[in-house]
Amino acid sequence: ATGADNDLYINQAIVFIEDAIQYRSINHRVDSKSLWLYRWYYSRTCQWILSLTITIILALAFVEKPSSLTITSDVRYRLPAWNPPCGLTESIELLCFLVFVVDVSVKSYLIGWEEFWKNKWLVAYILTLIVSLADWIVSLSFFCTENVRIRRILRPFFLLQNSSMMKKTLKSINSTLPEMASVVLLLAVHLSLFTMFAMLLFARTKDGQQDKEWVGYFRNLPDSLTSLLVLLTTANNPDVMIPAYSQNRAYSLFFILFTVLGNLFLMNLLTAIIYNQFRGYLLKSVQSSLFRRRLGIRAAFEVLSSLKETPPNAQQSYVSVGALLQVLQKVEMDSRCKQAIMRSLKMCSCDQLSAAQFQKLFEELDKDSIKQHPPSPEYQSRFMQKMQFAFGHPYFGYLGNVVALANIISICVVLVMDADKQPSERDDFFLGAINCFFILYYLLEMLLKILAMGLKRYLSYPSNRFDGLLTVILLVLEIATFAVYGFPHPGWRPEFMGLLSLWDMVRLVNMLIVFRFLRIIPNMKFMALVVTTLLDLVKNLRAFAGILVVVFYAFAITGIMLFQGAVVPMGNIRRSCFSFFLIYFCFVLFQSSFYIKKVVVLSFQEKCDFMALSGHFQAEVIYCLLYLLSVNLICRWAKIYFVVWWLISSVIWVNLFVALLLENFIHKWDRRCHREPLSDIEYQRTVELMFRDVLEEPTEEELMEKLHQHPHLQLCR
Amino acid sequence: ATGADNDLYINQAIVFIEDAIQYRSINHRVDSKSLWLYRWYYSRTCQWILSLTITIILALAFVEKPSSLTITSDVRYRLPAWNPPCGLTESIELLCFLVFVVDVSVKSYLIGWEEFWKNKWLVAYILTLIVSLADWIVSLSFFCTENVRIRRILRPFFLLQNSSMMKKTLKSINSTLPEMASVVLLLAVHLSLFTMFAMLLFARTKDGQQDKEWVGYFRNLPDSLTSLLVLLTTANNPDVMIPAYSQNRAYSLFFILFTVLGNLFLMNLLTAIIYNQFRGYLLKSVQSSLFRRRLGIRAAFEVLSSLKETPPNAQQSYVSVGALLQVLQKVEMDSRCKQAIMRSLKMCSCDQLSAAQFQKLFEELDKDSIKQHPPSPEYQSRFMQKMQFAFGHPYFGYLGNVVALANIISICVVLVMDADKQPSERDDFFLGAINCFFILYYLLEMLLKILAMGLKRYLSYPSNRFDGLLTVILLVLEIATFAVYGFPHPGWRPEFMGLLSLWDMVRLVNMLIVFRFLRIIPNMKFMALVVTTLLDLVKNLRAFAGILVVVFYAFAITGIMLFQGAVVPMGNIRRSCFSFFLIYFCFVLFQSSFYIKKVVVLSFQEKCDFMALSGHFQAEVIYCLLYLLSVNLICRWAKIYFVVWWLISSVIWVNLFVALLLENFIHKWDRRCHREPLSDIEYQRTVELMFRDVLEEPTEEELMEKLHQHPHLQLCR
Repeated sequence: ATGADNDLYINQAIVFIEDAIQYRSINHRVDSKSLWLYRWYYSRTCQWILSLTITIILALAFVEKPSSLTITSDVRYRLPAWNPPCGLTESIELLCFLVFVVDVSVKSYLIGWEEFWKNKWLVAYILTLIVSLADWIVSLSFFCTENVRIRRILRPFFLLQNSSMMKKTLKSINSTLPEMASVVLLLAVHLSLFTMFAMLLFARTKDGQQDKEWVGYFRNLPDSLTSLLVLLTTANNPDVMIPAYSQNRAYSLFFILFTVLGNLFLMNLLTAIIYNQFRGYLLKSVQSSLFRRRLGIRAAFEVLSSLKETPPNAQQSYVSVGALLQVLQKVEMDSRCKQAIMRSLKMCSCDQLSAAQFQKLFEELDKDSIKQHPPSPEYQSRFMQKMQFAFGHPYFGYLGNVVALANIISICVVLVMDADKQPSERDDFFLGAINCFFILYYLLEMLLKILAMGLKRYLSYPSNRFDGLLTVILLVLEIATFAVYGFPHPGWRPEFMGLLSLWDMVRLVNMLIVFRFLRIIPNMKFMALVVTTLLDLVKNLRAFAGILVVVFYAFAITGIMLFQGAVVPMGNIRRSCFSFFLIYFCFVLFQSSFYIKKVVVLSFQEKCDFMALSGHFQAEVIYCLLYLLSVNLICRWAKIYFVVWWLISSVIWVNLFVALLLENFIHKWDRRCHREPLSDIEYQRTVELMFRDVLEEPTEEELMEKLHQHPHLQLCR
Repeated sequence: ATGADNDLYINQAIVFIEDAIQYRSINHRVDSKSLWLYRWYYSRTCQWILSLTITIILALAFVEKPSSLTITSDVRYRLPAWNPPCGLTESIELLCFLVFVVDVSVKSYLIGWEEFWKNKWLVAYILTLIVSLADWIVSLSFFCTENVRIRRILRPFFLLQNSSMMKKTLKSINSTLPEMASVVLLLAVHLSLFTMFAMLLFARTKDGQQDKEWVGYFRNLPDSLTSLLVLLTTANNPDVMIPAYSQNRAYSLFFILFTVLGNLFLMNLLTAIIYNQFRGYLLKSVQSSLFRRRLGIRAAFEVLSSLKETPPNAQQSYVSVGALLQVLQKVEMDSRCKQAIMRSLKMCSCDQLSAAQFQKLFEELDKDSIKQHPPSPEYQSRFMQKMQFAFGHPYFGYLGNVVALANIISICVVLVMDADKQPSERDDFFLGAINCFFILYYLLEMLLKILAMGLKRYLSYPSNRFDGLLTVILLVLEIATFAVYGFPHPGWRPEFMGLLSLWDMVRLVNMLIVFRFLRIIPNMKFMALVVTTLLDLVKNLRAFAGILVVVFYAFAITGIMLFQGAVVPMGNIRRSCFSFFLIYFCFVLFQSSFYIKKVVVLSFQEKCDFMALSGHFQAEVIYCLLYLLSVNLICRWAKIYFVVWWLISSVIWVNLFVALLLENFIHKWDRRCHREPLSDIEYQRTVELMFRDVLEEPTEEELMEKLHQHPHLQLCR
């Protein structure tokens, strides 16, 4: 009933609307101080600091002790990596932990004690912090000499818990696990039955000539299992059956049967199952986001309707326009949306807003932001008008594409001609001359387009921005080349000079021209569809990529810990086995392993060549492994480690990716058939908008029921 | 108005109903003689002769000249293949051609001259026959010495044109081609842009140390294109970037970008597009089958209603029950269906049938054939009843599964223990004893089950038939072993004797036991689902497999013709390069190529190692190719040939397969959620039944419109 109460209600409304905009849950404390803390916590600065902290703690692994990140990976040339003194990375780590402690305390306080215990993520967060701090203390008390550092494996958790999208995705993956496990079990049964069958089929015989297959691949149970597992990845496909096939062609039937059943049926069944489970995933997630938004708006309405300035109304609650305007001014939101809401608020001449009207006002948030390009300048002279017509016409753009194609082809021709020439024999006059010509054309094209469209309209198209930027860079590079080497003339020769030689510069210019060719894409209908699908996919994929980073990081650190000592006896070339950089976490070792393999390991390799698992990403890992296998002792453990790795990164993740791609593409394709996009309006597509026509609006009852369950908000009625 | 007319109508009705049952088109001649010819042509004997002819003409390639099908593929041991004298295979071929000529004449006559020109398949059939016969004459006039035999490439066409399902599938694939072509084009653009980029990036430098990447993979345009194409198949994944990576880690970004874009996005996009195009394929095909069935039934109704014995009725046409009974007795159809229709005809006491009633009668055809198992025998004695209860109980079945598992485990243990022993050291007593024990148990189980269920009921379950058959085979093998070697005793040793040694027999017995373990599958819910999906898939896949056979056959023959002379200069080991057996059409050469490769080709191999394309099926082809590449002259042609082969067999076909699997599985999964199958009734699932709930019944107007368009049938009204 007081002004303080009114201020509180206004503040609550502000926070609820901000929650709605950001699709956040509204289940947090709603007293004045908490609201201040809440807005502070979700302010850009705070969230930015938190993200930075997470990045720093994850990046620490690149400089910490077992790492050796250098530019070249060639052991013969590279300098030893920088080894930070004990305490340096540890103190940075401590700072990060302190930020996390603040983060978890604020979060726990804001959602309240009772809710805290229900939130498993928060509990896990606190536990992770405690374990990490304990491990940190142990580490320091050993003066950084201990090898097992549990806190490093736990680090990716901080990334995971900070993203609601990733948590949602993880939940979704989790619900797919039972079905995936069934297929993996089926795969295991398939593998073991065929292993037994193979061992019976290719048994040792008295005739030494006859049991080559046994010697090579089915000597004992682990060998047989390994041979067939690799056959499942198709890595050893014809090799494994050569000895048997050489004896009798009919033996190939065994291998065909195994491959067709395992690889064609069961592996693809995994795709089918994962796709089937994920079909509704995007829709469900967007649906729950919509619910959160509607709930936030409704909550704002409810608190605003309790403002005492509104006349009490027995039937329905109303919100005064003045109060809403007051709230809107303080809410942080997209200025375009804010203006649109203000405008429609003024247009509606009423003084009071019902719940439905209130909700309707904020539907502006869900709308496509339609981008209107600024108009072209209007010229007075007829000549200029003709110029404008000519160079503003799409055909002029097509001409540009044709020229770009000609440029590409000419570069191609020069490349083919120069392919086998020595650098000293090469005459760069031709390449220099065509570069010069084409860059001049590009410059002219840009200027004429600006003339025709006006600078603002020109810049409002992303394709033009891309074009213009590349043209400017090309021009700068070309001018730099001329300044240093003079204009091209016959016999123009590359000279090495400073950082970039002329040859390097010309190459750089030409690479940029290759990129410039990509501007053709939007002009081709199907390609445009494919490219927009891919871009959409990248947006939706962020959560998946995050989870992948988490898994890779954990795997890499585990790998470092498991195989750290393993390489010492080989010649002390590298102390650690693994360093990492996400997918390429194995690259540090890569070169050294490659050389060693060539010299020492070749005999072992054949024994453990199971590791030539086919997935493309882990090819590097395999090289690492071959190195590891050279130290034959750890062969078994490495096998298990890498089979798990293969299952997760190649089988499961790739299938998830395919499922997501199918979902996105099919949805997009269906939409394309339904309506043709308007030519001049560009929609800013988001996942939410893609699904708008199939989303269900939450009902009034659902919203109110949820609001009454709010742990901190006591609604008057 | 005469009896002859009536007979004609009856005959027409019979043929139309048979058309409906077989989902055939009814657009054929309908006069008396043609009907007789039609029934004769579609009689089992005729169709069987036609299929046999197709099989024979396709199989001819295995004995024709360039083939060399022998048991062992090892050139050192095998005898020269049988070379049929000139004129033998040719005269068989001529016989086949004559059958085809009869086939095409009958078909053309039956559908009528006007329709014939509209039917592209028939025209193509005749053209193929003419070309084949001409080629055959040329061949004979050269006394079988000419190498180019076009008619061999055309042979799979006879397979294609004989199956309506395959023609339908081909049409469906054809409609997917534009979208596939778009993605393949995108892939080509991706490849060529990156190739240019790579050539600019990894150019030759003055420093010999720095341009290892250039030397190895990007020496000129074809080399670069090849390197990146192989990277797309992930076959050379880490190797291709090692030299560059060794220089600077950042170069790996180029390869990562290329792989992620090409392999992860574009390749999977192909899957998505194909799946999207194929989503409706099965449904559409089943829908058109349904239409054909309804049309056939309707046509039968219309002709029967013109019988003069029926009283003319102005409003509606009717069919007398007597006429229908007359027709039914002559129609060839499933006896169960016929009886059911007869029964319901008798139950409906009316004398006249309207169109709707007539249609309804034949809905019996669409129904699941519910299989009722015969009842168990009823025993008088209480002891027997108890026995029956105990051994008829599902738990007894579970016990059997547990015993089978125990058997598998014991075999496994023996295998692991005996793994490294010499055959002469091995004591087979233990294996013999457990085999003996378990086989006795299986025999007992079978007898007790027969006792409990009665022989008829026992045999009515497919799982029991599988079980029983294996048990009997095991018993026979075991008795044979005992007869020859006596009962197992410590020190029991395998001896070689005749065709099968004891050791071979024991192995055979154990392999069968591994198979017997599969009876567990129906007991596990998810596995049962997966297995039934796979079985369904196999049914639906026949058309796809047929098309694959056609493609493979054509490819194989083309390969033989292209590369036939290529191998002669290498040392005259094999005159022909290719022989074939569908997928493994390259196996004949396989061994020889393998040995030659080891000795001679290793240096060339590295140059043309692009051929290590990753697909699992073509691995053999690659070995062939490595052999071919040894004769460096044909390297370019072989490249093109094998890239096309990879695109068709690995990229497109595998994706089609995945699409079909997704379609089947998702449909099945949805059904599973809808209703639980009854426990004791086994449905005979067909594609038609799977989709029944979503199929649309054709309307009366559609049917009548189609009937009036019939080229040969003049309806009275």
